[in-house]
Amino acid sequence: MTSRRPVARMRRGSDGTWSGSERADSLAVEEPLEIRLLRGSPDEVSEPFTVTMRTPGHDVELALGFLLADGVIGRPKDVVTARHCPDAAIDPEGNPTHNVVEVRLAEHVPAPSRALIRAVTSACGVCGTESIDAVRERSLTDVAADPVTLDAGAVAALPDRLREAQRTFARTGGVHAAGLFTPTGDALCVREDVGRHNAVDKVVGWALQQERLPLAGLVLQVSGRASFELVQKAAAAGCPVLAAVSAPSSLAVDLAEQVGMTLIGFSRGDGFNVYAGWGRIRR
Amino acid sequence: MTSRRPVARMRRGSDGTWSGSERADSLAVEEPLEIRLLRGSPDEVSEPFTVTMRTPGHDVELALGFLLADGVIGRPKDVVTARHCPDAAIDPEGNPTHNVVEVRLAEHVPAPSRALIRAVTSACGVCGTESIDAVRERSLTDVAADPVTLDAGAVAALPDRLREAQRTFARTGGVHAAGLFTPTGDALCVREDVGRHNAVDKVVGWALQQERLPLAGLVLQVSGRASFELVQKAAAAGCPVLAAVSAPSSLAVDLAEQVGMTLIGFSRGDGFNVYAGWGRIRR
Repeated sequence: MTSRRPVARMRRGSDGTWSGSERADSLAVEEPLEIRLLRGSPDEVSEPFTVTMRTPGHDVELALGFLLADGVIGRPKDVVTARHCPDAAIDPEGNPTHNVVEVRLAEHVPAPSRALIRAVTSACGVCGTESIDAVRERSLTDVAADPVTLDAGAVAALPDRLREAQRTFARTGGVHAAGLFTPTGDALCVREDVGRHNAVDKVVGWALQQERLPLAGLVLQVSGRASFELVQKAAAAGCPVLAAVSAPSSLAVDLAEQVGMTLIGFSRGDGFNVYAGWGRIRR
Repeated sequence: MTSRRPVARMRRGSDGTWSGSERADSLAVEEPLEIRLLRGSPDEVSEPFTVTMRTPGHDVELALGFLLADGVIGRPKDVVTARHCPDAAIDPEGNPTHNVVEVRLAEHVPAPSRALIRAVTSACGVCGTESIDAVRERSLTDVAADPVTLDAGAVAALPDRLREAQRTFARTGGVHAAGLFTPTGDALCVREDVGRHNAVDKVVGWALQQERLPLAGLVLQVSGRASFELVQKAAAAGCPVLAAVSAPSSLAVDLAEQVGMTLIGFSRGDGFNVYAGWGRIRR
């Protein structure tokens, strides 16, 4: 459930100067899981029901719990078998990924309505590599070529600036935020939402309306963790730097590296970690 | 973006006894937003593209950012108009909900593939009341009738017990957890995931496999915030008590009240808030 990645740890010393050290860090693994359903005769081919980004482990439980919450199943008898498909998802090296679970429903279970089937978005393959390829094909600009650089001190100040702009959080403690900043820390747009993906969508939608896309030379600071989907949204908008207050996932780091984005995590006032694209950080 | 709700604040005194006080608390509002698309002739009817649970405000930005991340649009010229549909979603009192945004795409924009369209799940209406009604129709058992009661001290101890069982979090700081506990605080099943919904699905899937559904007389403790979707998943599994370390949303509280679930938020060692179903808490 964890994966080791090199990380550059930036820390502010007591004299105010910044220093960096490289070490290996454990990240929570994030990979897509496809849930496939079949009913009826044994030679029927299963059909995709949904794809969710998850941490591998207890995948059959995840599939069953998901189907129960959606009302597709309600008790053990509704399920004939539930298992990984060893041959359904193969990574580029030809190895099985364990990223597909197939659930055979009992004959008495009504077929789920089409309205329940959450179709696979094009950002989701059934292995991490496919997911990353899908994003790269779709990104607005070549984020890797963005020449922006950032002072370490400016990066570390962004979480406080985001928090200052969060009016709803102050009253509820219950919302995420995303903010678009210049390299010197000026806020261009800050949006709040109970869903962190929504907060990023609102910022990007603002930029589209303002004809400010792609987000070249800018930093997107978010209040929570950095998932694959947040890196994907930043890449789609052409943003070269994504900074998160909390941890990134393994696939978020992989995607950031592949598209040439700088990915910062655990950003606090006196330090932060750089997981990808550290060449843009000035000490 | 915030809504006032009554809350019972439970606090442990210096002598170890518990006391409760009632006050009003501000919660982040959560409501469904339906994004509809149309192209072509002016008299065409728009079709649903997705529903997302969001905090109202900047809804047109949210819709545009969402469509950009999905690759449906890429620049301002791809959008002819984007606006709320005042007549599309009406609450039970006959008032517009502002929960539908309609985006008219330019004729040069290719129609999004069916694979991109995230169909509406049956848990999502276009107003909060419809969303709640959909869950109530689908729940396994009458959670309201569950007679379980809990000591305040046992409730306050659950976040630490969950954290102790979180092996991945200790190494990464980057995963959510969900744990199923007895009223006296014994852990039956703890699962971790980068997605908090997945962690809950894994616990419920475990219970299904163990033939322990519905989750009568048990407590589901989660590491993050309590959203509508988490309450929905707990209700579908027949769990009478959901406790979260952080804040609940407005619609999470509304749903918990409607189904008769006890909803606890901001649960820490020395106190917690009860947002619904406080009759199950013993001092």
